[in-house]
Amino acid sequence: KKYSHFMQICNYSICRSSAGRLDGKMREKTLTMDTLNPQVKAVEYAVRGPIVIKAGEIERYLEEGGTKPFSEVIKANIGDAHAMGQQPITFLRQVVALCTFPELMDSPSFPEDAKWRARRILQGCGGHSLGSYSASPGVECIRKDIAAYIEQRDEGVPSDWENIYLTTGASDGIMTILRLLVSGKDSSRTGVMIPIPQYPLYSAAISEMDAVQVNYYLDEDNCWALDINELHRAHQAAKQHCQPRVICIINPGNPTGQVQSKKCIEEVLHFAYEENLFVMSDEVYQDNVYAPDCQFHSFKKVLYEMGPEYFSSVELVSFHSTSKGYTGECGFRGGYMEVINMDPEVKAQLVKLLSVRLCPPLAGQAAMDVIVNPPQPEEHTFKQFHQEKSSVLGALAEKAKLTEQILNAVPGIKCNPVQGAMYAFPRIFIPPKAVEEAKALGMQPDMLYCLRLLEETGICVVPGSGFGQKDRTYHFRMTILPSIEKLNVLLGKVRDFHIRFLKEYSGLE
Amino acid sequence: KKYSHFMQICNYSICRSSAGRLDGKMREKTLTMDTLNPQVKAVEYAVRGPIVIKAGEIERYLEEGGTKPFSEVIKANIGDAHAMGQQPITFLRQVVALCTFPELMDSPSFPEDAKWRARRILQGCGGHSLGSYSASPGVECIRKDIAAYIEQRDEGVPSDWENIYLTTGASDGIMTILRLLVSGKDSSRTGVMIPIPQYPLYSAAISEMDAVQVNYYLDEDNCWALDINELHRAHQAAKQHCQPRVICIINPGNPTGQVQSKKCIEEVLHFAYEENLFVMSDEVYQDNVYAPDCQFHSFKKVLYEMGPEYFSSVELVSFHSTSKGYTGECGFRGGYMEVINMDPEVKAQLVKLLSVRLCPPLAGQAAMDVIVNPPQPEEHTFKQFHQEKSSVLGALAEKAKLTEQILNAVPGIKCNPVQGAMYAFPRIFIPPKAVEEAKALGMQPDMLYCLRLLEETGICVVPGSGFGQKDRTYHFRMTILPSIEKLNVLLGKVRDFHIRFLKEYSGLE
Repeated sequence: KKYSHFMQICNYSICRSSAGRLDGKMREKTLTMDTLNPQVKAVEYAVRGPIVIKAGEIERYLEEGGTKPFSEVIKANIGDAHAMGQQPITFLRQVVALCTFPELMDSPSFPEDAKWRARRILQGCGGHSLGSYSASPGVECIRKDIAAYIEQRDEGVPSDWENIYLTTGASDGIMTILRLLVSGKDSSRTGVMIPIPQYPLYSAAISEMDAVQVNYYLDEDNCWALDINELHRAHQAAKQHCQPRVICIINPGNPTGQVQSKKCIEEVLHFAYEENLFVMSDEVYQDNVYAPDCQFHSFKKVLYEMGPEYFSSVELVSFHSTSKGYTGECGFRGGYMEVINMDPEVKAQLVKLLSVRLCPPLAGQAAMDVIVNPPQPEEHTFKQFHQEKSSVLGALAEKAKLTEQILNAVPGIKCNPVQGAMYAFPRIFIPPKAVEEAKALGMQPDMLYCLRLLEETGICVVPGSGFGQKDRTYHFRMTILPSIEKLNVLLGKVRDFHIRFLKEYSGLE
Repeated sequence: KKYSHFMQICNYSICRSSAGRLDGKMREKTLTMDTLNPQVKAVEYAVRGPIVIKAGEIERYLEEGGTKPFSEVIKANIGDAHAMGQQPITFLRQVVALCTFPELMDSPSFPEDAKWRARRILQGCGGHSLGSYSASPGVECIRKDIAAYIEQRDEGVPSDWENIYLTTGASDGIMTILRLLVSGKDSSRTGVMIPIPQYPLYSAAISEMDAVQVNYYLDEDNCWALDINELHRAHQAAKQHCQPRVICIINPGNPTGQVQSKKCIEEVLHFAYEENLFVMSDEVYQDNVYAPDCQFHSFKKVLYEMGPEYFSSVELVSFHSTSKGYTGECGFRGGYMEVINMDPEVKAQLVKLLSVRLCPPLAGQAAMDVIVNPPQPEEHTFKQFHQEKSSVLGALAEKAKLTEQILNAVPGIKCNPVQGAMYAFPRIFIPPKAVEEAKALGMQPDMLYCLRLLEETGICVVPGSGFGQKDRTYHFRMTILPSIEKLNVLLGKVRDFHIRFLKEYSGLE
C-alpha cells in the first residue's frame, strides 16, 4: 500500500519523540483522566464491567488454543436471550423483514397477516420507507397500536396515543426522562429514589447527571418486597441534603425477580402522591411472570383504580421494551414509554429534546408494533405464534423454579423465588477469611467470588455489589436464560465451586 | 369496556377538583417549567422546531379537507432522502433483510453476494441473531470492515479496528464524545468551538451539557470557507471566559455545503495541535461532493500527511453515518466514529459510557457494513448497485447546480455553490420594514420570512437563525432532495414568493 514505507519511518519517529513537539514544547493530551468529565468517571455499570471484560479475555485465550479447566465461557451476566440460544419469534421477524425489503410482499412464503401489518407500518413512514426518519416520538400508527394494547392490557383504562413515545430500548427513555427531572445544585440537587438492589442503569444515569442517589432497600427476608416504611425512612433522610423528586420502581424486579402486589403498588403511589414525587415505573419484564400466585399489575391501572384524585394528578412514566418478554429482541433497540399527567409545556420540551436525536430506529419501532399487535386467534399465523410464545415463557418458568431449587440446596446459598423477570439474585455466604483476602486485594468480596467462579468454571455472573446490597451481605446476579440442559450443568458447577470455596476459606481442607 | 361508566364519573370528578387533594392541600405538579432542568430549556433545535410543527398542522388541516393556496406541504427542512422519494439501495436492503430473517438464505431470489455478507454479520452476532446485544463498540467483523474501508479511502493510511465504534446515527457519537470532554464550572468551563452557521445538534448538545459555545464564523463571501484567522480570533476571545478544549468541523458543510480544501484542513489541524484542542470532524457527507473542482479529504489522512509529530499526537474523532451519502438510510440509525490518539484510560471510560446504553441497533450496524463493504466489480450484484449509486449521486449533483442557478437569478437572493452535502443556504435580503415587523412580533426576521413562505406556498424550510449567522444577515436552509421535477416547481415558488415579499415590504406595490 502507498504508505507502507512511510509508516516505518513514522513508527520510528513516534518512538523517538512521542511526547515532543516541533517547537520543543511538550504537547500533552487534551483529554486525560485529569480533564475527563468527572461525572463520566463516576459512572459504574457492572453488567458490562470488569468481570465481563475478564470473561472476554478468557474466551479469546480459549479460542487461541489456551487451556482452562473448562471448554467454554457461559455468559450469564446479561439478559441477552438470543445469545443464549433463544429463537426469534418467526412472525416478528417476518414483519420486520417485509418492512426492510418490501419486494417480499410478492413472496408467497410470507403470510398475509404479516404483510398487512408491514404495509400498514410502511404507510406510516415517510416515502413508505423504513429508511426515513419518523417523527421524533415515533411512527403515528405504531403509537396508536401501543395505546390500544395498553387499554386492553389494563382492561379498559384509557390510553392516549399522544402520550406514547417510542424509544431506543427502555434505557434511552429512562435517561431522557431523568434528563428533564435532574437539576439544582448543593442542597437543591434532585434526589432520585431507587431500589437497592437495582439495575445499574439507574445509578449510572444518576452519576452521569450529577443527581443524588437515594436508596430504598428491598426486603430480602420478605422475598425482596418493597416496604413502604423503608420508603418513608429513605425519603425523610434524603430531604436533609437534597430534594427528592423522583421515585423509580422496577417491577418485576431486576436483579431481584420479585413481582409487586397490587397493595404494594397502591402504597407506593399514595406515597408519591403525598410527597409530590414523579414516578418512573420500569415495567420491561411485564410479560415475564412465572410464580403461579403472582400477577403483573401496571402502575397505571392501579393508579386509575385509586380514583380520579390520583389518576388526574400523579405524574407517571412507564417503560417497556422489545428486549425482554418472550421476544428477547435486544439488538433491535426498540421500546416505548407512556407519559401520564405531564405538564403540557414540559411535554413540548420533551419532544424538543427527543428531536435533537431525530428518532428511534425504525426496525425497532416495527418490532415493538408486532409485540403490541400480535397474531389474533382468528388469524392463520396465530397457532405458530402462540406455540413459540408459550414455549419460551414455559421454559423460562421452568428455569426459574429449577434455579431456585438447585441454589437453595447448596449450603451457604439462599435464593428467593424467581417470581418474574430473568434473573436469580442469590445471597451467598462468604467466609471471613475470604472477605479479608478481598479487602487486601482492594476488591469487593463478591467480586473476588465471581472472579474465582469465572476462572475456575467459565461461568460469568455479576457481583451483587454492582447492583447494591445491604452492608455485609453478598450476592450475585445470574440470568436464567441458558437452555435447561445447560442451566443444569451451570448450576451444578456453581454448587461444586461454592462448596470448594467454603472449604478453602473455612480452613476445613 | 369495563371502565367506561367509571370514566364518566372520573371525568366529572377531575373537572370538579383537578387541583384539589383528598386532604384539602393543593397538589402541584412535580415537573413544571419552573422545575425543569434549565439546560434542557436552553436547548434549541430548529431543524424540527416551530416551523416544522406549523408545517405538520397545515398538513393535517389539508388532510381534513381544509383549503390553502397549495395542495401539499413540501418538507425541505430535513435531510431525509427516502421521505423525498429516493429509493433504497437494493443490495443494502437485501443484506439487512437476510440478517433479519435468515430463512431467506434458502431463497433463490436473493443474490449470493448478499447472502455471504449476511452470514458473516450473523456469525459475529451472539446466537447468530440480530436480536442479541452486540459488544458496546459494535460487532467485531463490522468494525474490521470499517477499518479496512477507511484504509482504502485514505490510500493506505493505517486504521485500527479497535479505534472504531459503531453509533446510533452520528448524533449519538457526537453527544457521547462531547459528554467526555465537557466539564468545569465558571471560567474553567469547557469551550466548544463550532462553525457558524452550524448544524444545530452542536448548539443543542452544548446547551444540554452546559458547555460554552465558541463561535467561529465561516466566510460567506468566500464560499463559506473556514478562515484560519477567524479561528485564532474566536479562540483568543474565548480564552477570557472559558477553556476552549474542542474544535468541531463539519466537512462537507451543513448547512453551508462547502467542501474544505486540503490546505484549509492542514491549517485547522496545525491550529488544533498548537492550541491543544481535541478535534471532532463531522464527515457524514463525505460521499456527497458535487463540484468538479472539489474533493473530499479526510481529516485523518491530512493529519497523517502532516507527519508523525502530528499523526501521533492530535486527538481526532471522525464521524460517519448511514443516513446521508447515496444510501440515505436515516431510519436505521447507523453510524460509526473513528477515535485517534485517545488516551487509553479515557478510551476505557468511553467504552464504559457506551456500555450503559448497551449497544447501537444491530440493523443499523448491518447497514453500515454494506456501505463500507459494497459489491465489488467482480461480483454479480455490482452492476445494479453501481447503477443505483451513480443515479442517486448524479441526480444530487444536478440538483445542487439547479438550486444554485435558480436561486441566484432571483433579485435579493444570493446562493453560494452547493459544493457538497445536501443543502442550499442562500442569503436573502429582507427589507427593513419586514425586519421591523418581525421584531414587533418578537421573532427573527428570517422566521417571519419562512413562516410566510410556508403559509403561502406550502414549502417548509428552516430559518438561518436556527443555524447561526452574522448579525443582520438572513438565510434559510433547504434540502436539495426533492426530485428534479418537484425541485423546479419548489424553486419557482420560492422565487415568486420572494419577489412578492420584497414588493410588499418595499412599499412598491
